[in-house]
Amino acid sequence: MLSHKLPKIWYGGDYNPEQWDDPHVWSEDIRMFKLAGIDVATLNVFSWALNQPDEETYNFDHLDATINRLYENGIYTCLATSTGAHPAWMAKKYPDVLRVDYHGRKRKFGGRHNSCPNSPTYRKFSALMAEKLAERYKDHPAVIMWHVSNEYGGYCYCERCEAAFREWLKRRYGTLENVNRAWNTRFWGHTFYDWDEIVAPNELSEEWAGNRTNFQGISLDYRRFQSDSLLECYKLEYDAIKKHTPHIPVTTNLMGTYPELDYFAWAKHLDVVSWDNYPALDTPFSYTAMVHDLMRGLKSGQPFMLMEQTPSQQNWQPYNSLKRPGVMRLWSYQAVARGADTVMFFQLRRSIGACEKFHGAVIEHVGHEHTRVFREVAELGGELKQLGDRILDARVEAKVAIVFDWENRWAISLSSGPTIALDYVKEVHKYYDALFKQNIQVDMIGVDEPLDKYDIVIAPVLYMVKPGYAAKLEAFVERGGTFVTTFFSGIVDERDIVRTGGYPGELRRMLGIWAEEIDALFPDRRNRIVMTKPHGALEGEYECGLLCDLIHLEGAEAIAVYGDDFYAGMPVVTVNRFGAGQAWYVASSPDAAFLEGFLGKLCADKNIRPLVRKAPEGVESSRRVKDGRGVLFLLNHNADMKEVELHEGRYRDLLSGETVEGRTAVPGRGVRLLEEA
Amino acid sequence: MLSHKLPKIWYGGDYNPEQWDDPHVWSEDIRMFKLAGIDVATLNVFSWALNQPDEETYNFDHLDATINRLYENGIYTCLATSTGAHPAWMAKKYPDVLRVDYHGRKRKFGGRHNSCPNSPTYRKFSALMAEKLAERYKDHPAVIMWHVSNEYGGYCYCERCEAAFREWLKRRYGTLENVNRAWNTRFWGHTFYDWDEIVAPNELSEEWAGNRTNFQGISLDYRRFQSDSLLECYKLEYDAIKKHTPHIPVTTNLMGTYPELDYFAWAKHLDVVSWDNYPALDTPFSYTAMVHDLMRGLKSGQPFMLMEQTPSQQNWQPYNSLKRPGVMRLWSYQAVARGADTVMFFQLRRSIGACEKFHGAVIEHVGHEHTRVFREVAELGGELKQLGDRILDARVEAKVAIVFDWENRWAISLSSGPTIALDYVKEVHKYYDALFKQNIQVDMIGVDEPLDKYDIVIAPVLYMVKPGYAAKLEAFVERGGTFVTTFFSGIVDERDIVRTGGYPGELRRMLGIWAEEIDALFPDRRNRIVMTKPHGALEGEYECGLLCDLIHLEGAEAIAVYGDDFYAGMPVVTVNRFGAGQAWYVASSPDAAFLEGFLGKLCADKNIRPLVRKAPEGVESSRRVKDGRGVLFLLNHNADMKEVELHEGRYRDLLSGETVEGRTAVPGRGVRLLEEA
Amino acid sequence: MLSHKLPKIWYGGDYNPEQWDDPHVWSEDIRMFKLAGIDVATLNVFSWALNQPDEETYNFDHLDATINRLYENGIYTCLATSTGAHPAWMAKKYPDVLRVDYHGRKRKFGGRHNSCPNSPTYRKFSALMAEKLAERYKDHPAVIMWHVSNEYGGYCYCERCEAAFREWLKRRYGTLENVNRAWNTRFWGHTFYDWDEIVAPNELSEEWAGNRTNFQGISLDYRRFQSDSLLECYKLEYDAIKKHTPHIPVTTNLMGTYPELDYFAWAKHLDVVSWDNYPALDTPFSYTAMVHDLMRGLKSGQPFMLMEQTPSQQNWQPYNSLKRPGVMRLWSYQAVARGADTVMFFQLRRSIGACEKFHGAVIEHVGHEHTRVFREVAELGGELKQLGDRILDARVEAKVAIVFDWENRWAISLSSGPTIALDYVKEVHKYYDALFKQNIQVDMIGVDEPLDKYDIVIAPVLYMVKPGYAAKLEAFVERGGTFVTTFFSGIVDERDIVRTGGYPGELRRMLGIWAEEIDALFPDRRNRIVMTKPHGALEGEYECGLLCDLIHLEGAEAIAVYGDDFYAGMPVVTVNRFGAGQAWYVASSPDAAFLEGFLGKLCADKNIRPLVRKAPEGVESSRRVKDGRGVLFLLNHNADMKEVELHEGRYRDLLSGETVEGRTAVPGRGVRLLEEA
Repeated sequence: MLSHKLPKIWYGGDYNPEQWDDPHVWSEDIRMFKLAGIDVATLNVFSWALNQPDEETYNFDHLDATINRLYENGIYTCLATSTGAHPAWMAKKYPDVLRVDYHGRKRKFGGRHNSCPNSPTYRKFSALMAEKLAERYKDHPAVIMWHVSNEYGGYCYCERCEAAFREWLKRRYGTLENVNRAWNTRFWGHTFYDWDEIVAPNELSEEWAGNRTNFQGISLDYRRFQSDSLLECYKLEYDAIKKHTPHIPVTTNLMGTYPELDYFAWAKHLDVVSWDNYPALDTPFSYTAMVHDLMRGLKSGQPFMLMEQTPSQQNWQPYNSLKRPGVMRLWSYQAVARGADTVMFFQLRRSIGACEKFHGAVIEHVGHEHTRVFREVAELGGELKQLGDRILDARVEAKVAIVFDWENRWAISLSSGPTIALDYVKEVHKYYDALFKQNIQVDMIGVDEPLDKYDIVIAPVLYMVKPGYAAKLEAFVERGGTFVTTFFSGIVDERDIVRTGGYPGELRRMLGIWAEEIDALFPDRRNRIVMTKPHGALEGEYECGLLCDLIHLEGAEAIAVYGDDFYAGMPVVTVNRFGAGQAWYVASSPDAAFLEGFLGKLCADKNIRPLVRKAPEGVESSRRVKDGRGVLFLLNHNADMKEVELHEGRYRDLLSGETVEGRTAVPGRGVRLLEEA
Repeated sequence: MLSHKLPKIWYGGDYNPEQWDDPHVWSEDIRMFKLAGIDVATLNVFSWALNQPDEETYNFDHLDATINRLYENGIYTCLATSTGAHPAWMAKKYPDVLRVDYHGRKRKFGGRHNSCPNSPTYRKFSALMAEKLAERYKDHPAVIMWHVSNEYGGYCYCERCEAAFREWLKRRYGTLENVNRAWNTRFWGHTFYDWDEIVAPNELSEEWAGNRTNFQGISLDYRRFQSDSLLECYKLEYDAIKKHTPHIPVTTNLMGTYPELDYFAWAKHLDVVSWDNYPALDTPFSYTAMVHDLMRGLKSGQPFMLMEQTPSQQNWQPYNSLKRPGVMRLWSYQAVARGADTVMFFQLRRSIGACEKFHGAVIEHVGHEHTRVFREVAELGGELKQLGDRILDARVEAKVAIVFDWENRWAISLSSGPTIALDYVKEVHKYYDALFKQNIQVDMIGVDEPLDKYDIVIAPVLYMVKPGYAAKLEAFVERGGTFVTTFFSGIVDERDIVRTGGYPGELRRMLGIWAEEIDALFPDRRNRIVMTKPHGALEGEYECGLLCDLIHLEGAEAIAVYGDDFYAGMPVVTVNRFGAGQAWYVASSPDAAFLEGFLGKLCADKNIRPLVRKAPEGVESSRRVKDGRGVLFLLNHNADMKEVELHEGRYRDLLSGETVEGRTAVPGRGVRLLEEA
Repeated sequence: MLSHKLPKIWYGGDYNPEQWDDPHVWSEDIRMFKLAGIDVATLNVFSWALNQPDEETYNFDHLDATINRLYENGIYTCLATSTGAHPAWMAKKYPDVLRVDYHGRKRKFGGRHNSCPNSPTYRKFSALMAEKLAERYKDHPAVIMWHVSNEYGGYCYCERCEAAFREWLKRRYGTLENVNRAWNTRFWGHTFYDWDEIVAPNELSEEWAGNRTNFQGISLDYRRFQSDSLLECYKLEYDAIKKHTPHIPVTTNLMGTYPELDYFAWAKHLDVVSWDNYPALDTPFSYTAMVHDLMRGLKSGQPFMLMEQTPSQQNWQPYNSLKRPGVMRLWSYQAVARGADTVMFFQLRRSIGACEKFHGAVIEHVGHEHTRVFREVAELGGELKQLGDRILDARVEAKVAIVFDWENRWAISLSSGPTIALDYVKEVHKYYDALFKQNIQVDMIGVDEPLDKYDIVIAPVLYMVKPGYAAKLEAFVERGGTFVTTFFSGIVDERDIVRTGGYPGELRRMLGIWAEEIDALFPDRRNRIVMTKPHGALEGEYECGLLCDLIHLEGAEAIAVYGDDFYAGMPVVTVNRFGAGQAWYVASSPDAAFLEGFLGKLCADKNIRPLVRKAPEGVESSRRVKDGRGVLFLLNHNADMKEVELHEGRYRDLLSGETVEGRTAVPGRGVRLLEEA
């Protein structure tokens, strides 16, 4: 449980009262928070400059007053450390805090995410600020969560980072010879004879266009290094806080599939995962579901915090549509259904100046409660009160896992060839979506996660196979597990060095195939998957594209072959019996119809039951289990009411209290929380 | 009158004889100028390096000779000060003249618009040059106009500009505390504790992509500051000139809707407005008309100079089509019809090297007069002679005004949300175009313009309401005026700080509505305007899009409601009786059909008569009045002849001399100048 | 003959054994090279850092071993000088080797093509390396070709280049006054009074977007200067090598139509031309044919080397499709058919790390010979052995020449107006393609090439006419030649200064026309070519677009007129009898059907016979002649078999040995090498 002080789904969000020097506004805030059922506020996110007006002075009067005022009104504090943007005086006095950007330019003061993660000044002052806050509020009863910095991200390419990169490399590789080998520097005569010859890979050296590079190894290591550098900043604050408040959990708000940080590495150092959910206008809801599952997977299924979402509209999308009536509530329950124990907003009151003033808020510019947005917020607040601790700490149980790995993603994104169209996250989502549509509960896991608890493990585009991972997968399959991977897998090791001897490298034995060539298709071209063996409901032909591995069977059996081109008749989907299990290879990127049938059959073979007997398109389901009793969430993303056929047994609707059996209707954009009887 | 020496519509243009060191060329120029009826030449636009070969030396021999040669042949001089591009030696010796660009790069010598407006060197030498010229030519009878610099524009982000920006801020805000409040710097912890912490907002600090910013307030003020800085450069030259020639008018050539400079602020310091008209290939002719009206409006209706247009083709468009036969003449009269008292070209003779050699000219590379372009130029020259002073100084009279404000435009363009698709100038043009098509004469006015003389004032997207402007509008309506504004109006004050308490802020009382939310539509999405009350010829349904304000009536009445989405049935067009007048709100961006009907009815209600009884599409009309007698211009933008129905009364065609009554035909791409009998 | 030691079409490619420190790999390489019939390997391309680990130390042990190991196994060495990428230590110690890029940024170590061509350090060390290699291997029997650096390219804008540019200008123009005149610097007041005021034209000064410029003259000269600077680097190595091995030919690998270097100027300093052929995915095969012809034309028809091509796929295209079965062989013979005496690959073994690891190779990552790619390579190796010296040194004979000029291309690309859509290479290819489809053998020639040997000379878009070239063309036509040029020709001299007095300037007399205006069409607009005189099979109407010159006849005769727009009826295709010959002008960019008919007729008039009587679409032909006997190449780019009708006479198929007469079938993606009996 996040805190025994607040044994319910937390409800609140980012609150920046320092932007109004007006007691009337503050008391209105309190009044309206109460109306809305808000019980937690994230404070101090961007108050560094306010709290520390110069190097010597710290002044927390404003923060004291806010924490107290809220606490006196029953509202707890999620206390941020304010280090997400350094003060202007610091940039002026200590320019080492300023980043050098990808284009090689030393930045000036401005924006946020603006600190060099290897700046001694930044590290010193940010840790000191965290410590000051921890000392000051360690006994304050209001503080129930620490929120370090804000949405960490952004790389730096300054000379200090370069120097730190060399030290990082020494720790990782020991000798320069190992570095040269890891990066294959004899290619293009890049051999380094002195550590100081190594520079940061950006537009001035090896990279261009964000993810194009001459040396995948260098660029990959720089991403690891920057992710580690930012993590180190976090850890310095974490340690400073823990010294004083060992029992209050510490988090920092993540950003879902944000590409720059290896969140699995980060999650090890978070007491609880929290994240900010801002679906883009065209984000499929199954994508949002996948990201919730991924955030839950970061700490092996531990419930997480929905730290931010907008009550209505965003400001930084090209076209910022309003969330339609009901949608905020629906998406809030989607988070809860998949493991969130908080529902929090950015922001509680809309700012009146600068770039987020057109971002939605609980309290809008009009300033009163008679708005659609506020009414919806208050309605949800009432429901969350009603739910109490019923769902809190409940776990999601899945027999199917999908592997997600940031380092593999980096390597794929940095690859020169075979196609720029390969998007790792998109390929992962295709597999997720096929299961989602069939109401199969899925865990999103990292490569460190044990596999024993799963019946099926899917690792789309497992291009990079890290040391020991092939053996781990083999053991899983030998013990009876079903493993699925795809084209362009098993190609390189953790250095992005090719495993020679035939693709898919270390996975070849288990998969029983050899991929001789990899054909890249134009965006408007497709090949066909022609079924040659029965596999559940699959029959006839399906489409595939993107990449086509030209594979040979080496013990595996084909269930389908290519229908076109000079490799027509070669296998496209294969299965290898390996020990007690099966290892599947999907040699191209199939259409959704194939994937649904394909994965549906694998689940059926493993007796993995969908969460409901039958649900119409657009109705999402998920299930959380607490003390052995499940709560089934039904989320209707359609605008009109839909009927769902339930499995046998009786349910109780946690919101309406009514008893449900057999089938149930879910209103348009509505939800059902059905407790198993 | 621009000059009593030349009491007719001036005819001429930019002339750069210094590019040819060849007396034969110069005498050919004179010969052909005479053939073409040219009587004014703009000289010395880019001759700084020629006239001042080093810091100490000034040499005007070449200019003397040219002015004299022209004058002896009856051609007057519009004398430029040559400061539009600094000499190479100056950049080498005094690098402070070189700009730092938006990307943060110190530039080298090159191009034009290349001087930092806060460079002490540039300010000193440019003012000195203006003074030298004024001293030298103050008594020369040929000089009838001063042309300071050339097409001012381009911002600088150097350290001198930063320092000057801080001084500018001190003057504007007094204290740093006021600055912090104006920019809402508590957002993202940007509080400044020392003036020196403030840096210029560009890609190194707060901005990106030209108009994206973290702090609207900073970026807005930097635009004001740069506009002021460039204006200061202009004023230094202006003052130097005026010391010696107080009676010769001074101008600088503007660029229509050029975004970087607040031309209303500039116009206060120009004796006469002049501008360069280069319609892009897809510019609607009503857009050009609007810009002419805007240029006329800069000085409250005072006639302006058409300083530049091409006789045939441009060079810097992607595809530089020839102006079709007749089009140069047609567009020249369009300028005159809307207030121009000059018709001038860039350029009189085509240069033979560098980037403008494929820009059309009166004298083409072939060098003789036997070209289509020359013939058309000479024909027009003859006509302008014939017109004499008939139209000179004539005024345009309008009862409808459209408000245009550069600072509002900047603020809208800098806004983060609700949509990137909102283009202020485009929205203004939609309203202009609806009136243009109905032959309603319109004034384009700034926010300082008195409103008494108008019956209808339209302020599309009045996002920023400056101090006192709401009261001014209220007074206008109370006295019986009709006011129209749209969605996303009344949102912020002059600092881009939101007026809390409900949109449209200060306009809410007068408009009698409250806009609760603002929905942004995808580019391919539309809503419907469903008429619920009669309004002229409007009936049934129309389309709208872009943004949809969700409004509630607070005294106003709806004449139409939304047809779609969850806000179907909410008002989309409202009118509030306020005092003796009406205040209209159009809550979305309507289609052209709606706007024509909507505005047509408002004009009819005010007895504002179209300039003609009936004109086919593509025939433009405008009317200039001198000494109480009007001249009606009919401009046929179609390729074929069109008939126009005139109001009662007799007209005399100023070009053909014929008498016209009832209806008249206008040849394809032809014009009619009909003097009222 | 390239070398008497290897009197056959060389077969091999780039080989980088230094990337594997594994003797087993090296012996596998040898084994497989023998299986593939490989007899030449390009070594040492990127080994600078390996061979010279610091300023003082040179170590060629690795290279010695490789050369010897190959030679002992019958494989010769094409020895590269390794200077295509400088070592990291050099960049660290001597930063002058690092370039400043187009954006004005000093680069760090990284990539290749990374040396400033005017760096004293680079010039010293690169020439020294070449010399060391020449000294060491001058007597080694394996070395049969020198390969200087690699794919020279990329401009630098550093201060040393600026200084060198000024020296280059002094040599070219003598005085600053001449420079000012050449660049027309009085335009925009750019007059230079001191050499030091001149800066490099890039984004910091006169240019933007790669080829947009304020001063065409400056930008043009900077391209000449950079091409010369890089050539100077090449020549320093060339001279160092020649001192020691005067009899071994020296080359550097060119890149076809690479825009940055004037290859005609370069070719003068190459003993043999070599080039790297990487068709993009949508490259028409007639374009590849044209580039082969151009590479042959660089040295007036001398056979060239195909230095690089991929055996299967590339890595740096967006979508890297596999070469379909047979295509590698087909495209190899296409090179030979057009003058190549070598067939060489990049690369012999695939690297395992960095950006080219997904570029195809003879030895793939799997490491054995049982791959489709290897089998195709080995099959071709056998055929080339079988052909022996039959084709070696054979010449191509053409009566039609197309003029190609890099400086003209630069000038066109830099032009501001009349259209950005004008692509010189594309226009040239349109003419080439029309002849290619009719099986007319063509030479691609530079402006220095004598014209006597041709019946027809075509110079599309001869915008820049260099000194003496008009006279040369006139002499050609007077003696009976047929000359064809197009719109936008004869406009400027070699300084990009317009020839005044009427387009097409110096060509006007010969062409008998005057182009009064040039209209630029929108991309979606077309005009019509309406035939008014008979011309072969042409009749009725054709389409044209892009630019339309409005021309007047001055002695020429029109065979077609425009069909549309205000210039309908004006001539669009004209011919002028001039001396014994004809000078044609095509005033717009016609469609393919027109061009085929138009050029077919010109060839027929000159009795220029197609290489075959009739060939279906997609079957390419070319002919090489040795000792008076021709070999006709038939290349079927279609996937299915096609029949070709031959001219009278008997042929012997060099591969199958069969005798052929009358007609022959060419398999899909197959070839026929038919020796004339």
